[in-house]
Amino acid sequence: MAPQNRLQELRKQIDPINLQILELLNKRATIAREIGEVQQELGTTYYDPEREAQMLTELQQVNEGPFSNDTIKKLFSEIFHATLNLHEQDARQKILVQRKDPNQHTHIEFDNGLTIGNDTFEIIAGPCAVESYEQMDEVAAALSERGVKMIRGMGYKPRTSPYDFQGLGEEGLKIARQVANKYDMVVISEVLDQSLIPMMDEYVDAFWVGARNMQNAFLLRALGKQRKPVLLKRGFGATLKEFIYAAEYIMSSGNDQIILMERGIRTFVQETRNTLDISAVPLLKQETHLPIIVDISHSAGRRDIANPLGRVARVSGADGLMVEVHPNPDVAMSDAKQQLNLNQFNELMDDIDSISVRYKAPTV
Amino acid sequence: MAPQNRLQELRKQIDPINLQILELLNKRATIAREIGEVQQELGTTYYDPEREAQMLTELQQVNEGPFSNDTIKKLFSEIFHATLNLHEQDARQKILVQRKDPNQHTHIEFDNGLTIGNDTFEIIAGPCAVESYEQMDEVAAALSERGVKMIRGMGYKPRTSPYDFQGLGEEGLKIARQVANKYDMVVISEVLDQSLIPMMDEYVDAFWVGARNMQNAFLLRALGKQRKPVLLKRGFGATLKEFIYAAEYIMSSGNDQIILMERGIRTFVQETRNTLDISAVPLLKQETHLPIIVDISHSAGRRDIANPLGRVARVSGADGLMVEVHPNPDVAMSDAKQQLNLNQFNELMDDIDSISVRYKAPTV
Amino acid sequence: MAPQNRLQELRKQIDPINLQILELLNKRATIAREIGEVQQELGTTYYDPEREAQMLTELQQVNEGPFSNDTIKKLFSEIFHATLNLHEQDARQKILVQRKDPNQHTHIEFDNGLTIGNDTFEIIAGPCAVESYEQMDEVAAALSERGVKMIRGMGYKPRTSPYDFQGLGEEGLKIARQVANKYDMVVISEVLDQSLIPMMDEYVDAFWVGARNMQNAFLLRALGKQRKPVLLKRGFGATLKEFIYAAEYIMSSGNDQIILMERGIRTFVQETRNTLDISAVPLLKQETHLPIIVDISHSAGRRDIANPLGRVARVSGADGLMVEVHPNPDVAMSDAKQQLNLNQFNELMDDIDSISVRYKAPTV
Amino acid sequence: MAPQNRLQELRKQIDPINLQILELLNKRATIAREIGEVQQELGTTYYDPEREAQMLTELQQVNEGPFSNDTIKKLFSEIFHATLNLHEQDARQKILVQRKDPNQHTHIEFDNGLTIGNDTFEIIAGPCAVESYEQMDEVAAALSERGVKMIRGMGYKPRTSPYDFQGLGEEGLKIARQVANKYDMVVISEVLDQSLIPMMDEYVDAFWVGARNMQNAFLLRALGKQRKPVLLKRGFGATLKEFIYAAEYIMSSGNDQIILMERGIRTFVQETRNTLDISAVPLLKQETHLPIIVDISHSAGRRDIANPLGRVARVSGADGLMVEVHPNPDVAMSDAKQQLNLNQFNELMDDIDSISVRYKAPTV
Repeated sequence: MAPQNRLQELRKQIDPINLQILELLNKRATIAREIGEVQQELGTTYYDPEREAQMLTELQQVNEGPFSNDTIKKLFSEIFHATLNLHEQDARQKILVQRKDPNQHTHIEFDNGLTIGNDTFEIIAGPCAVESYEQMDEVAAALSERGVKMIRGMGYKPRTSPYDFQGLGEEGLKIARQVANKYDMVVISEVLDQSLIPMMDEYVDAFWVGARNMQNAFLLRALGKQRKPVLLKRGFGATLKEFIYAAEYIMSSGNDQIILMERGIRTFVQETRNTLDISAVPLLKQETHLPIIVDISHSAGRRDIANPLGRVARVSGADGLMVEVHPNPDVAMSDAKQQLNLNQFNELMDDIDSISVRYKAPTV
Repeated sequence: MAPQNRLQELRKQIDPINLQILELLNKRATIAREIGEVQQELGTTYYDPEREAQMLTELQQVNEGPFSNDTIKKLFSEIFHATLNLHEQDARQKILVQRKDPNQHTHIEFDNGLTIGNDTFEIIAGPCAVESYEQMDEVAAALSERGVKMIRGMGYKPRTSPYDFQGLGEEGLKIARQVANKYDMVVISEVLDQSLIPMMDEYVDAFWVGARNMQNAFLLRALGKQRKPVLLKRGFGATLKEFIYAAEYIMSSGNDQIILMERGIRTFVQETRNTLDISAVPLLKQETHLPIIVDISHSAGRRDIANPLGRVARVSGADGLMVEVHPNPDVAMSDAKQQLNLNQFNELMDDIDSISVRYKAPTV
Repeated sequence: MAPQNRLQELRKQIDPINLQILELLNKRATIAREIGEVQQELGTTYYDPEREAQMLTELQQVNEGPFSNDTIKKLFSEIFHATLNLHEQDARQKILVQRKDPNQHTHIEFDNGLTIGNDTFEIIAGPCAVESYEQMDEVAAALSERGVKMIRGMGYKPRTSPYDFQGLGEEGLKIARQVANKYDMVVISEVLDQSLIPMMDEYVDAFWVGARNMQNAFLLRALGKQRKPVLLKRGFGATLKEFIYAAEYIMSSGNDQIILMERGIRTFVQETRNTLDISAVPLLKQETHLPIIVDISHSAGRRDIANPLGRVARVSGADGLMVEVHPNPDVAMSDAKQQLNLNQFNELMDDIDSISVRYKAPTV
Repeated sequence: MAPQNRLQELRKQIDPINLQILELLNKRATIAREIGEVQQELGTTYYDPEREAQMLTELQQVNEGPFSNDTIKKLFSEIFHATLNLHEQDARQKILVQRKDPNQHTHIEFDNGLTIGNDTFEIIAGPCAVESYEQMDEVAAALSERGVKMIRGMGYKPRTSPYDFQGLGEEGLKIARQVANKYDMVVISEVLDQSLIPMMDEYVDAFWVGARNMQNAFLLRALGKQRKPVLLKRGFGATLKEFIYAAEYIMSSGNDQIILMERGIRTFVQETRNTLDISAVPLLKQETHLPIIVDISHSAGRRDIANPLGRVARVSGADGLMVEVHPNPDVAMSDAKQQLNLNQFNELMDDIDSISVRYKAPTV
């Protein structure tokens, strides 16, 4: 027979085998699903590695090839894994923060009219830390004039060294509250430990979880029991999966008001403090229904590229950006190199406002 | 005396000391400069570590504090280093690719009217590799319709495995040339070894240096002796300093027609093939006068976020973007996951065109 | 004059200038030190960026070269910085965890005779999590037979997903305590939140701070007020400086019983879960007087290279290693891929014991 | 029926389905293998993405669940992939550098009696670059006294900047050859471009491929046609897979005398120049039959931890280490910070010799 015809004929033999395998896979899945239900009755988990190991051993004992035992083990592990996934889907229908359909968007609304996640591009700004009433007042006046509705009011600063300035504490929160009230802004402030939540709750409108605490499960669960929104920063060494699951810690504890913040990751690059992972924005938009903010200050760690990063954030699909602004960055008690002064902040806003985007929704 | 007054007085004592140190530093620099000239006469290099070591030893022997010997060593090393830099500046007036004033921009002009680096945003596109005349013709027609003037015409593919498809070779270049001529486009093609330059020169309008060859000094110097433009990709493990110096290898050999390409770096992130380092664009713009292109295909390694990355590139200050386009990516012989099909390419172009930017120059 | 002689002469002119600069630098430092004392009286900090900015401006105004203003700014910033460092040293004589002389070694002693940091090489082992009395008993018997004196007794597991097994809690700690008593071992257990300390204190001999909590300042300070030793794991994205300062948070709060653990960092490498940073061991030994343990389980995330990593740890200068051991890793509730079974553990011990090292102290 | 019994019964239904799937998979593989043979006759490649896409579409059209179409697509893609692998194995029986059985070890033998890969631990040493006859002679004498049989004789240095010292070229090779002859050593030297091979071949005993050239396919293939051994350094951004395939480029071109060198990777850590990836040694030993050398100089980039890294290399399973040694590192023309002086080299050798290892083979 001519090779071309032989090829045709052999391919025809493959097709029914594919269908038979398909049928058996689904038959297997149906029984496995029932096994899952019985196990739930019995109060055991579906995943049973000993049983799996035993099945794999048996299959390898009877396997005569041409697939090697390793290949057979790999293929059946995939089948077991798919069955397990099926079971997990049944039980939980995927995780809560995961986007179920393309139009699912969480909106975070505040009393002063600010909404995050609603197709607008919002600015969160303010100094690295509250240092004095005058400092906060000067910044808030400037921010307010440009329409910024959320101010950073950091009373507690997580610092590398125990000897560095750790923030004014409750005193700082009081100042932030006063100033925010004066300009009709909302205050967001970092919470470093769950024990601080009740006190902070008196002053702040939203809780901020820093990169160092992204996987502090006790803090996340405690915030999950609050009513106020939580802004969760990505850890500088965290994968997107870990970031999403950290948000799930909050949401599965009862609080669905969560804002994600991309803030740069640790890489070998030394020209910037971190490397802004801008691709994370569209990927997180695909995976979750939560609003996403881009931190253009900590990602770069230098103010001279704030404008291009601000423009980039504007069109990335993010719901806003966060930028540190200080009346006199050179004398700031922390993060001096990356805070913008008031002029620079206004230039940044001009630059962002110079971009117009005709496409409908800034999603992926 | 009251502490406030004492502080005032002590500070007054510091000021003249500063001035004396300043004077001595410059006096020292003047003599060092003359030493440099004498050494040039003698044919030796200025840098003389033995002499430096000896000076440091002497200073440490007579140092009585309060600065420790380590501090004195560090401060004088800085002074030596500054003197050395002074000398290097004299000799070369900084490196050639470095921007000397904010308005210095290299323009790369091609015969078909394409100019890169001139405040426009240009698209370089085409399939990962030339596979056939039909494939190239179909892509070129689609690109041409959207105003793209430079097509990828890759005849040689650098591949991880020696058993993977390595390109059609010269045959591929011929096809690319024919198709480019038909649509009045220019062809850019990767050169893997300096021995290929003469042959390739007959077919291509610009040479492409891949990430794996960014520090291939022999190739860079050979391209420095060509007349045609060179597009230089950043290595996936390269710092910006290394990238800039790689360009300097080309320019110092005589060719000032260089285009830089940011294409993502290796990080721990696994959701994308590489991590697009968008901050590199404004930083490279600050440092060099060369045009910069953003590769949105290899950075992500997945086509589903091509649109947001395209928008991001558009406003980053870059002079254009590079995207892989294939009539049928699923059957491409390489990079199947990241190439756009023709529909997706048109959507990307629509998305980019939907952005308008009022600010004057897209530089930092 | 012959160039050689001219060179000689010019160099002779440099030497006295060096000495004059040296003298002025120290004179400046003496006055600056006094300024620091006055500021302490005044209750202000020494660092005064406005004053620095003003001095730099003045120097640049009078600078006539050949050093550029940028160079002058850089050199004087170094001088200011050195002065600031001098001040910090005076105030605190460097940080507490920092090694002051080569023979300074912290020893951590336990009631059962175990000492860590005393030129021996100790093994910390046990399952990832306490799952049952039988599991712990079986492991402890095997460990005890090989002379292991500290067992992991993890009741709380930090997990990526909120739906993963989170540990048996206090129940697990009870089991660990019982089993440890039976075999005369000490128990170490991870503390995830400062609120757990009082309860855990009843069961454990040492507290374990996980990688995710390395920079949880509230937890670190709370442990600083405990009497029991604290084992501090390096975060997978943490620099050595951050790691050392995290230990300083504990020590500056009152507890000097600290053990450091290197456990691998996040890199682009995908063949291992993390990349063991073995160079960190000698570097930490140089910088601190604390004992250092190498985690050979989480660094690799795969058991098949446990033996070579164990041998490597043995000669790296570390004070011991940590390895996860489980009676049946395939059915473990967490970290299944990296735990050793009892046979593998015995082989690891044989392998480590096969190395003899004649050099005196396993320090740098 | 009691749930326990029901569970038992359902599981009994699963077992025969597993066996049926197994049988069909192997039947499918047998036909696919024949298809491969026909395609070879036809001169086409086995991989046919269009055919695969069509089969997947058909399966999804008839799939009725409970597995979703996505799951079915994934499982069949795995099956296709396994079939493809089967085919590749048939054709090539896995890649050449891959270890086929645990006792397969490549030995590299030199005329002076040096053998690398034969259960001994060998030292490759010498200065970063050849600078003069005196320098080489002084180093060679010291190395020779400690039994070192291979000396670095670098005439060409790959440098970041085109203005840095690039080596003495052929002159340097002549010096290296002379000195090596005097002390009965073999010379290894870096080859930067394939055009240099014929000239270098007159002076050197082995070719060295630097990290920057690890994926220079033209150079690798040219070295594959040589008879002399090739030492291949891992790129600082290269995965192990890429490293192994780079070696395969050489071996598949005809030269099986290959030595691998682990030399540290780029990470966020700044305390060392690179991060020594010591886990790569046992992993490469598992995957390949090639000898592996640990570069303790470039990995750390600082000489103060050379001794612990040397000890670590000694027990890691590696076949030797590479260390840079210079009579006076402070005045070296390159890599000044990391080269050992002769005293330090002797201390390193003492330290390594102080370790004795009783375990049989230093493999995994």
